[in-house]
Amino acid sequence: MTGYLRNAWYMAAWSHELGREFLTRTILDENIVLFRDAEGTATALVDRCPHRFAPLSRGRLVEDGVQCGYHGLTFDPHGHCIRNALDSKVPRAKIRHFSLCERDHIVWLWAGDPEYPDAKLVPDFSYITDPELKGIYGLSTFRANYELVTDNLMDLSHVEFLHPALGGALLEGGQHTVDVKGNRVYSNWRTQDVPNTVSLEMWYPTHGKHIDHSFDMRWDPPANIYLGVGATLTGRPREEGFTLPSAHLLTPETEASTHYFWHGALAKEHPQSLDDMRKIFTDAFDREDAPMLEAVQRNMDGDFWSLRPIMLATDAGAVRARRVLTKLIEEERERNAASV
Amino acid sequence: MTGYLRNAWYMAAWSHELGREFLTRTILDENIVLFRDAEGTATALVDRCPHRFAPLSRGRLVEDGVQCGYHGLTFDPHGHCIRNALDSKVPRAKIRHFSLCERDHIVWLWAGDPEYPDAKLVPDFSYITDPELKGIYGLSTFRANYELVTDNLMDLSHVEFLHPALGGALLEGGQHTVDVKGNRVYSNWRTQDVPNTVSLEMWYPTHGKHIDHSFDMRWDPPANIYLGVGATLTGRPREEGFTLPSAHLLTPETEASTHYFWHGALAKEHPQSLDDMRKIFTDAFDREDAPMLEAVQRNMDGDFWSLRPIMLATDAGAVRARRVLTKLIEEERERNAASV
Amino acid sequence: MTGYLRNAWYMAAWSHELGREFLTRTILDENIVLFRDAEGTATALVDRCPHRFAPLSRGRLVEDGVQCGYHGLTFDPHGHCIRNALDSKVPRAKIRHFSLCERDHIVWLWAGDPEYPDAKLVPDFSYITDPELKGIYGLSTFRANYELVTDNLMDLSHVEFLHPALGGALLEGGQHTVDVKGNRVYSNWRTQDVPNTVSLEMWYPTHGKHIDHSFDMRWDPPANIYLGVGATLTGRPREEGFTLPSAHLLTPETEASTHYFWHGALAKEHPQSLDDMRKIFTDAFDREDAPMLEAVQRNMDGDFWSLRPIMLATDAGAVRARRVLTKLIEEERERNAASV
Repeated sequence: MTGYLRNAWYMAAWSHELGREFLTRTILDENIVLFRDAEGTATALVDRCPHRFAPLSRGRLVEDGVQCGYHGLTFDPHGHCIRNALDSKVPRAKIRHFSLCERDHIVWLWAGDPEYPDAKLVPDFSYITDPELKGIYGLSTFRANYELVTDNLMDLSHVEFLHPALGGALLEGGQHTVDVKGNRVYSNWRTQDVPNTVSLEMWYPTHGKHIDHSFDMRWDPPANIYLGVGATLTGRPREEGFTLPSAHLLTPETEASTHYFWHGALAKEHPQSLDDMRKIFTDAFDREDAPMLEAVQRNMDGDFWSLRPIMLATDAGAVRARRVLTKLIEEERERNAASV
Repeated sequence: MTGYLRNAWYMAAWSHELGREFLTRTILDENIVLFRDAEGTATALVDRCPHRFAPLSRGRLVEDGVQCGYHGLTFDPHGHCIRNALDSKVPRAKIRHFSLCERDHIVWLWAGDPEYPDAKLVPDFSYITDPELKGIYGLSTFRANYELVTDNLMDLSHVEFLHPALGGALLEGGQHTVDVKGNRVYSNWRTQDVPNTVSLEMWYPTHGKHIDHSFDMRWDPPANIYLGVGATLTGRPREEGFTLPSAHLLTPETEASTHYFWHGALAKEHPQSLDDMRKIFTDAFDREDAPMLEAVQRNMDGDFWSLRPIMLATDAGAVRARRVLTKLIEEERERNAASV
Repeated sequence: MTGYLRNAWYMAAWSHELGREFLTRTILDENIVLFRDAEGTATALVDRCPHRFAPLSRGRLVEDGVQCGYHGLTFDPHGHCIRNALDSKVPRAKIRHFSLCERDHIVWLWAGDPEYPDAKLVPDFSYITDPELKGIYGLSTFRANYELVTDNLMDLSHVEFLHPALGGALLEGGQHTVDVKGNRVYSNWRTQDVPNTVSLEMWYPTHGKHIDHSFDMRWDPPANIYLGVGATLTGRPREEGFTLPSAHLLTPETEASTHYFWHGALAKEHPQSLDDMRKIFTDAFDREDAPMLEAVQRNMDGDFWSLRPIMLATDAGAVRARRVLTKLIEEERERNAASV
């Protein structure tokens, strides 16, 4: 695998997951404890007391921080030791603290140089908090490298084979365009005059009439994808049609496992409840994608490129994303090497 | 361990295991998918699509080959890519295909240079399809190196201690001869005038009379053993006696696990059903040999020879087999090194 | 971790665990089989037959030793091969035999040079067999390095946080003295005029009156700890008070797991049964210490010192013990290097 991009934002949690209880999550191989401080600010610390290495998450939240459950040292939300239960002498001790950015109902974690979290790099998922929409929030943890999950998403030709219940091969005969703008990759499909699919019929019933179909995909490094699925009665203007916006936010747990946060939305006034969407998403992600990607992971006895994968036209988006990420990781390594 | 002999036939499956469904089996550390093509020919491919490394066995059999279940590439039974669902351009892609030889109800797999499968090297187990016999077919997978299983079989002095229910120590006072002919090892025991055993009494009842007993064992590299167990009323000619032919065919799954295919037979007109034999075999192999050999495997923190095993006279057959195999593996390595 | 001290006594078992059946236990990464010979003498052998590496513990005890359950070789209690079932020629074979010293109801095992077991180094736990006392005997196996368990015991400031049910912070305001005498470390706490604790009240009821409290701890390398907990009505002479003697004997199973043998005692005529003590000990060790120490073990991705632990005043005893042990291990290595 290509390793991790460090100076980047990774989704650590949904906002609603954090409160005045500990949430532990392994991110980029690091055990991290997440919680809200007494003011409600999202906080992330390495889940290890620097005294005898107990997980802080086995301790308790106190008014001004976290108290270790082993020998009682207390740390403030920035990781500074502020109290020693048995001794007025407080040790100079500091736990690694991560910069977080809470936006769009997402808690983003900066995995790189703690001095330079760059809020401009937080990708835009503001549709999630659009008051006109209602949405579903999920997290599936796959035993597969995050780039394999990116590949899966960026090459939707798998839908026909891996997700037959979605009921449609919407890429055949379609137009595929892949654009790289800066470090962002767009991969869009347009297919004209095709039968509606079983799943889209549920949200955008056309009663047998054909549709023009679109997939609009936007990838931001390291692995955050927006996907809009569009359908419009053939020949009608796109504005009249239906859009299902969705977010697919991938955070490496380890080199071989991925936290896959996902979200999908409907217009608030849409008559359909969100239960069907939740079932469709979880069936596809947990019962079809996860087993396949975990089998792929087990089947790879080396680095992706060293196995010399065959390239198909449909891989264009996924391959561009891989290349951008590899370039960014290499640039970061060179910068780090130069600064030593 | 000594590694694998590559240019050799390994049993991959019983003939009846293969049909128009996928059978997956790890052989010599390689994940392999086995099936019959539309004409019924046994086929074995590496179970990995060269596009994105999905196991082919998660796809489906089609008329002219196998279609991958991830993005729909189709491969013919020789592993050549013949169709791309979304693109008329078919990629030049080839999956590793194994030469098979189906004989004696056994599917043999050639693990070496695909250009030179040598049918002359297929060992003879034609007794299995003898129309005068009825037989039982089994497969037990042991968490132990295949040479440990060979040792177990080639040194039947373990029967008295590990398989007490078989009811007899048939080697004591017997004559043991070990012969190496080419790359084949024979290990035979003859014991005269001994009480019949509990298990032989079932198939060859002597009602208290003594028997002359024989074990006739033939080992072919890498690990395929024929064992004939013989019993004859003491003093009577061997032709009047009873023979239980059996096959013990060992295929490494990994360095630390073995597919143990086994077969035993009785004359078709023998009044005894095969149920007793099946129970005796599975009790001995699965409940006594497997736990012992798996404990031995766990107990070895190094290569067999590096642990300096004590040698007993009864080890002669097993040690000869180990030496022949080591010699063949070394010769193969030298040939490969020379040809580079 | 610092590795193992070899020329030292490790507790292998409680005396009552050994009899005419096999007890298997991994000690310092070695699989060992323990039993009593026909005369009742405690015996320990490497649990591996030198013929084909079967665990001897899968065989059986015979009058004059152990018979292997695979091919029937018999070994005497010193590990010498004395019989071959199928051959009058007995192979010259020897299994590694460990010197044991049975004392104080403890079976001590010498892990070092078999020629030089030094009985003077056996630490004194004679209180265990004091006829005036009644006691409880336990063994908990922790998935944590033994030095982490030593740290846990030698720094009792964890009691307040990890064992809240014991109901008391008996170190606060107390006097801590740490003494190193030879290779022995003493760590004692004296706290004056404090409320009795929930647990001590059970054995030494003071009905609300204050006590003077003491912890007397003695550590002998590699990891054998005596702890006396004392309580006396404030101002009264210590002789009138109560003492709970206890033993905490740590034997590495592997670098990452520890056999924690423990014992505690009350005066024989004490009205309280031992059931409460057993519950208090097992709750504290198995439900509180073990999960914490196993989490610490998992949380350490390097050697203890390489993680640069913060040092607190309360760590003095634990750190001295670590230093003595490190010194002894280094001296042993130097001696071994010099003698080569």
